[in-house]
Amino acid sequence: MPDAIDGFVVSLTMSEKILSYRQLFNFSKTVLQKIGCNEADAALAAKVLLSADLRGIDSHGVARLSGYVRLHDAKRVNATPDIRVIHETPSTAVVDGDRGLGLVVAPVAMQIAINKAKNVGTGWVSVQNSNHFGIAGYHAMMALEHDMIGIALTNASALVAPTFSVERLLGTNPICVSIPAGDEPAFVADLATTTAANGKLEILQRKREPTPTGWVQDKYGNSITDPHTLKTGGALLPLGSDREHGSHKGYALGAIVDIFSAILSGANYGPWVPPFPAYVPIPENQPGKGIGHFFGAMRIDAFRPAEDFKYHMDKWIRRFRSAKTVEGQNRVLIPGDPERESEAERMQHGIPVMADVFEDLKLLAEKMGIRDAGF
Amino acid sequence: MPDAIDGFVVSLTMSEKILSYRQLFNFSKTVLQKIGCNEADAALAAKVLLSADLRGIDSHGVARLSGYVRLHDAKRVNATPDIRVIHETPSTAVVDGDRGLGLVVAPVAMQIAINKAKNVGTGWVSVQNSNHFGIAGYHAMMALEHDMIGIALTNASALVAPTFSVERLLGTNPICVSIPAGDEPAFVADLATTTAANGKLEILQRKREPTPTGWVQDKYGNSITDPHTLKTGGALLPLGSDREHGSHKGYALGAIVDIFSAILSGANYGPWVPPFPAYVPIPENQPGKGIGHFFGAMRIDAFRPAEDFKYHMDKWIRRFRSAKTVEGQNRVLIPGDPERESEAERMQHGIPVMADVFEDLKLLAEKMGIRDAGF
Repeated sequence: MPDAIDGFVVSLTMSEKILSYRQLFNFSKTVLQKIGCNEADAALAAKVLLSADLRGIDSHGVARLSGYVRLHDAKRVNATPDIRVIHETPSTAVVDGDRGLGLVVAPVAMQIAINKAKNVGTGWVSVQNSNHFGIAGYHAMMALEHDMIGIALTNASALVAPTFSVERLLGTNPICVSIPAGDEPAFVADLATTTAANGKLEILQRKREPTPTGWVQDKYGNSITDPHTLKTGGALLPLGSDREHGSHKGYALGAIVDIFSAILSGANYGPWVPPFPAYVPIPENQPGKGIGHFFGAMRIDAFRPAEDFKYHMDKWIRRFRSAKTVEGQNRVLIPGDPERESEAERMQHGIPVMADVFEDLKLLAEKMGIRDAGF
Repeated sequence: MPDAIDGFVVSLTMSEKILSYRQLFNFSKTVLQKIGCNEADAALAAKVLLSADLRGIDSHGVARLSGYVRLHDAKRVNATPDIRVIHETPSTAVVDGDRGLGLVVAPVAMQIAINKAKNVGTGWVSVQNSNHFGIAGYHAMMALEHDMIGIALTNASALVAPTFSVERLLGTNPICVSIPAGDEPAFVADLATTTAANGKLEILQRKREPTPTGWVQDKYGNSITDPHTLKTGGALLPLGSDREHGSHKGYALGAIVDIFSAILSGANYGPWVPPFPAYVPIPENQPGKGIGHFFGAMRIDAFRPAEDFKYHMDKWIRRFRSAKTVEGQNRVLIPGDPERESEAERMQHGIPVMADVFEDLKLLAEKMGIRDAGF
């Protein structure tokens, strides 16, 4: 929710180019085919990637495309994975992603959860041996068209210090829950379990501005406001910021995401999760395989008739949306509102791409010999 | 985690009496039998209630006993409920609590989730028509002895303002997740989705001290530090405190708890959840029945062999527990540490009962004609 608003505003003021969804989708798909993905996988991965740009989560979209290519060049990503179920029960499965792009592995695993929910009411899938999966929202939202609640979690490389720790032991470990409604748009909460996501630090770095207090600490655990601190041993703080404001709760939530994603599946956890930047060495003595994810699907009518549920979801949403606001705010938002509004705007009017990201895409086109990049 | 630490310290300094677990259990059970519970239900409810006192969550234990009795006197609680499944699939159920004590309804519903997990890997139970269920931790921890992960959520009457709202629309809506380990104690995260729980305000009221900023707002939505503000239209703030520090995430988490607990089951939600104090009128035009809960159980070996999982949980716990700390702190805690330590201490040396709570218990004994109260 926050990233969408902030990302959008910053993009409009600092961007150099507006590119259409189609341009960026086609280019991303071409790049992914160049690294060896088959056409279906490349199209799926491009769709997942672009869903971040559309929804205003600029840090997780085409800005990362060259990063995925570098992971492939470093042989950390397998472009032709054999994604398979290695253990299952009627309502659960563990999936081995075979080092595939998380952008491809995750939708496959989520579909398995959905299929199990069709059969026994709910489906729960933990994934090992994967890579970064883009935004959690894409995967969780796959459940909506089936009248199911969707859940998507993933761990990530350690940038977050638990309460009282100076060491970084958790990723920003997001939680996404998508819930269908009736006439109202779906409820989609997609949140990092930190006070601020890493993408917000990057925005402040570009603007040469300090962070608010409570977002980061330095390598000794002191509260600071330097948005560059992660480069010198500092850490992001769990949601809650400090002990007095509940950081132990954000820490606990990030820990739950880590355990569901990696200890249930056999992936790496805590400080051993492989990093996204290919130049950062993989931690030694890893206890598992790759990155872990966790997906859930719950069929609404496994609890009550979907029409009844949707009637009450609409009533819930309308009551919250119409709440009296504090001075200076004109509405109470429903989780998913900003991202949905961004998606409608950007699908119609194009996606603002910041100057450095645009340069990165042009370099990528050159490096991969793509002449008809379309921009 | 926080409540345990703070509650414990305050209890030791302000308490007038130390009573044994057995004294308080027997008295609570007797009181519950007096209002009409059968012996088994009274014993179960007393055990759930006392688990809060043992674990240091003083606000949810015997301090509430007279409140439950007043709910019964006001005919808001049914002492002889017919708790039954009204809809189910192999992995899900909806339970009607028949206005029973949540202290009794919740363990029954959690057991149904556990039984379903035995059959198909996981079990998920949403509950309507219930009342306050004590601490979420008791119910979630029922899963541990079965080598399952346990989850317990509940909604509660509205004391929390969503981000940008001056209206109170959510309860403190806790999330509890309990995860078995091997040689290490279980991981048990039990957290209100607010920056501070209501019980912490009560402690500050007794001490005549202000709250830290970021815990509450006044009836206009201004940030204040008055621990009495809930009595004059103020509100607790979602985890994150304000928009800049992620309160929209705490709001989203509280909303998810509300929807899973009440819209899946047919209970009341948002501002329509019935209040705990019997003197507070029930909201008009309620859309559902009673309070809602949600329980989950996931069999570890539905994902991987339990021994493998526990080996890695132990490794996870030891890595986090041994993390280098910030100056002035001697350890990084694992969720559940403070409550477990409180339980061991209080089971052995007794439970500190504050003067006003002790007076309340004596009045209750008198009112109910209990001569052998045991204290």
